[in-house]
Amino acid sequence: MKLGTAGAKKHEGLILAVDGGATNCRAVLCTTDGDVLGSGRSGPCNYQNVGITVAIRSLEEAIGKALAPSRQKRKLKAAVFGLAGLDTRKDYRLVSDAVARMLARLGIESEETIVDNDGIISLLGAIGHENGVLVIAGTGSIACGITKQGNRSRAGGWGYLLDDAGSGYAIGKAALTHVMYVYDGRERESGVVKAILDQLAFADPEDIVDWVYSSSFSVDQVAALAPVVCRLAEEGDWKARGIVMDAVLSLKQLAMSVINRLGLRQTPFYLLLSGGVLQKATFLRAMLIDVIRTECPQAEFVDAQYPPICGSVLRALMYEDIDHRKVLARLNSQLFDIK
Amino acid sequence: MKLGTAGAKKHEGLILAVDGGATNCRAVLCTTDGDVLGSGRSGPCNYQNVGITVAIRSLEEAIGKALAPSRQKRKLKAAVFGLAGLDTRKDYRLVSDAVARMLARLGIESEETIVDNDGIISLLGAIGHENGVLVIAGTGSIACGITKQGNRSRAGGWGYLLDDAGSGYAIGKAALTHVMYVYDGRERESGVVKAILDQLAFADPEDIVDWVYSSSFSVDQVAALAPVVCRLAEEGDWKARGIVMDAVLSLKQLAMSVINRLGLRQTPFYLLLSGGVLQKATFLRAMLIDVIRTECPQAEFVDAQYPPICGSVLRALMYEDIDHRKVLARLNSQLFDIK
Repeated sequence: MKLGTAGAKKHEGLILAVDGGATNCRAVLCTTDGDVLGSGRSGPCNYQNVGITVAIRSLEEAIGKALAPSRQKRKLKAAVFGLAGLDTRKDYRLVSDAVARMLARLGIESEETIVDNDGIISLLGAIGHENGVLVIAGTGSIACGITKQGNRSRAGGWGYLLDDAGSGYAIGKAALTHVMYVYDGRERESGVVKAILDQLAFADPEDIVDWVYSSSFSVDQVAALAPVVCRLAEEGDWKARGIVMDAVLSLKQLAMSVINRLGLRQTPFYLLLSGGVLQKATFLRAMLIDVIRTECPQAEFVDAQYPPICGSVLRALMYEDIDHRKVLARLNSQLFDIK
Repeated sequence: MKLGTAGAKKHEGLILAVDGGATNCRAVLCTTDGDVLGSGRSGPCNYQNVGITVAIRSLEEAIGKALAPSRQKRKLKAAVFGLAGLDTRKDYRLVSDAVARMLARLGIESEETIVDNDGIISLLGAIGHENGVLVIAGTGSIACGITKQGNRSRAGGWGYLLDDAGSGYAIGKAALTHVMYVYDGRERESGVVKAILDQLAFADPEDIVDWVYSSSFSVDQVAALAPVVCRLAEEGDWKARGIVMDAVLSLKQLAMSVINRLGLRQTPFYLLLSGGVLQKATFLRAMLIDVIRTECPQAEFVDAQYPPICGSVLRALMYEDIDHRKVLARLNSQLFDIK
């Protein structure tokens, strides 16, 4: 999302790249060649969780640190923000406006300001300028993709009340519901019941009800039950297998929507699996790779080459006639020192 | 749940019967013969929604009105409370304690004080002293049952985060999720999309996301979408039919759990269907009756004979050797005047 063009004159080719996630925020000031001039780190940045004021404060803090070593250089070629919590047009509008006001307040002039979803940005960072699809299953789930031609698509990410397809929350919730269904006679016993009660240190299924509707409940805590279910599935528990299989099919549906919309089904493309569930639950991950490969024989499963913040830089340089790989490699080699 | 016995002496055979629901609260003071001496009505009484202080205040107000015409008569044979929001043992403990303190404060002495779930109480009111199973699908869902021998069982009612099986909330939520899945390419279009957006007066599926995570969102509003889905199902929309069929099978599972636990499958019993979804969605109701009848040929579907407050009176007289039907009929004929 372009916010405006501050002038035609090139401002020394500087890029401010920001990766604002739910847990923390990173900012880097670098040249278009990939030389890092400054970097900074701060706190949580998903405005849907912490509110817009705290999110912007995190951005300011990280950007302040990144700009500190080169204080006079406030004229940029591009400022790119890859931010968590941008799902609807309303989110984009609200956050873009707040970012524009923040940049003005900090006296930063940028030829181009891009505010984008962290999924697309981290996909760019991961695979560079190629056809790629990213499926994330952590607490929530989302898929997004981009083609060499610059087409993009996303599916999912509508949050736990509307769409938790294949997420850690969905897996944890299915396990909790199963405990209650066994308790009231609707389903037969499985290993999931004892494992979940043990994990929560509850003596009684009714404790789950009291907890879920108390103020101490959070979506993250439900998602934190997913590893227990995935472990049991690997050990062969019938119910855990069912829950994990449901998650796999939901994530496949999510991925296929993006793949089909971008016309990548019969084309080579990179497929990245990210987020806590897909990184840690190897059993679930392997099943998902199997079911997607059946439909997309040319999909190549890869690990992220570079961290998300490299995606922000690449986003700024995307349409420049340069060697993107070289810039990213150079940038990445200097990233170890982000405080 | 017995709270205590205040003395062996019979106190003129008076019963205080209370029906405390989510919307309002009714109280009746009557004799064991079913003669109404006073009655009262007040506001919401589900402590899970309004908090224990407001719930108790509603009870006090209704009871105050019921006792006003016979102010000196504060010695009762029984006080029976059929209350919404009693799901876990913790709920029972908390509400029973508060009710006991309230009775002491009001100077009411009762040989027996019974605090029970409104489901069981309204089932008693509906069918009298027989084998019966009640399935409620309104905003939430629950099933409960009771046998002539006094055995009882319940299933469901664990709330929208754990268990919305077949409820109005489940139906509304499935419709909202479908709108988002069509929007991001995961499901094919159906008549549900336009109908739901029209009903909510939204131009765009993304408005749903903004609404669901805003402070103006409520579970009741999602449940209020159920009639739209049920109407479309009746008209033959493929997606609406799927959603309604899922609800029917979930409600059947709920009912069968209670029926099996009480050993009623091969026995004659009354089956009552209650709550907004089962009362208004005739299409869904008819399907549910079909699928339950297949498993339980001796189930007799009946409408409630008497209102829930009659159940509270019957609960007090349950083990007395009297003509329960006569008492209930007498009581019911005098109930029209509850203010």
